[in-house]
Amino acid sequence: MGLVITIAREFSSGGRELGRRLAEELLIAYYDKQIIEDIQKKTPYSMSYIEEVSEHRPFMLPPINCGTSFSLYPDVSLQQSIDVHSTQNDLIKEYAEKSDCVIIGRGADYTLRELHPFRIFVYASEEAKVKRCKLREAKGENLSDKQLAKQIRIINKKRKNYYEYYTGQKWGDKENFDLLINTSNLDIKEMAHHLAVLIKSIQQEQKQK
Amino acid sequence: MGLVITIAREFSSGGRELGRRLAEELLIAYYDKQIIEDIQKKTPYSMSYIEEVSEHRPFMLPPINCGTSFSLYPDVSLQQSIDVHSTQNDLIKEYAEKSDCVIIGRGADYTLRELHPFRIFVYASEEAKVKRCKLREAKGENLSDKQLAKQIRIINKKRKNYYEYYTGQKWGDKENFDLLINTSNLDIKEMAHHLAVLIKSIQQEQKQK
Repeated sequence: MGLVITIAREFSSGGRELGRRLAEELLIAYYDKQIIEDIQKKTPYSMSYIEEVSEHRPFMLPPINCGTSFSLYPDVSLQQSIDVHSTQNDLIKEYAEKSDCVIIGRGADYTLRELHPFRIFVYASEEAKVKRCKLREAKGENLSDKQLAKQIRIINKKRKNYYEYYTGQKWGDKENFDLLINTSNLDIKEMAHHLAVLIKSIQQEQKQK
Repeated sequence: MGLVITIAREFSSGGRELGRRLAEELLIAYYDKQIIEDIQKKTPYSMSYIEEVSEHRPFMLPPINCGTSFSLYPDVSLQQSIDVHSTQNDLIKEYAEKSDCVIIGRGADYTLRELHPFRIFVYASEEAKVKRCKLREAKGENLSDKQLAKQIRIINKKRKNYYEYYTGQKWGDKENFDLLINTSNLDIKEMAHHLAVLIKSIQQEQKQK
């Protein structure tokens, strides 16, 4: 495997932008939404369904016979979620084997752990996340800072649940990453430029070993 | 305040080396052991005593009258520890005001929190810390990897206790830092060079705002 950078990120912390800019600086492949399309080609599910479950922990209803007997019928919704997740894992491994790349989210750091990607976690203060979210808000939404902060917390809770369900590790725990970047006071464009140089030099050095 | 970089670090993770190299790259002041000498000039305590308490939580014996009445006499040992810590805080603020600098350890990130220094936390896997420690081991020590790992854990426990006692924050919690660097797979010299360029560009950009 060549240079593979995985970016786990809090919602509205600029992780996706950092990843995209890193890929541009390093002239390497970039995988984010494309994963959804690629899963769709390999499974019978719709784009919207895949999008819904690809970064969320399966939602499990208790079986209807709960409390009366053990169910012999598998939970279809759970099985579909796991199916999407498993296809996603295969694709992430394919991307990593195919060429140098940046992969956004989806627990790719964990999926590729034996191949030692460069694992980045991007986060920011609540204030900075709200500010960033406001800049990207669709016209007419006009949510208050408090409402935005609540929405951001809900999305991040889902990402955390997804990551912890499938990896068994704590989301954003520094032990599972090479670099954790707080973007609250950073210009992401500038950061990406210098980080790209740094990552390239690390990679060259590791090749020489 | 100009450019102030604080480095909190796990023992044997290379944080001190990274800090020293950053100061060299940026041609700015570097404060580590000098803090001990400067505290000595301002207090009646010996160098060895200051060294002992300057990064450790005060060791508090229960007062001899514990359980029988409330003591009216202050705990001398506790008072001395707090005295050293308070002088250390004043010095850290003096350094930060005097010129651009790198300050190693001693909860400087927290002491200078209102001045917004660039806060780095340096850490590594236990395996990497043991390896680093072995390279620096005094001749004739010949400790096993298990013994070294235990010593490293004890020192880091003390640093954690110190930080949490005086700051009320969790040691190594990413919310309190701008960048967390895992040095397990990194060449620190190379890292310092690129990081210096990055930090300089962040600073220039903030000045322009």
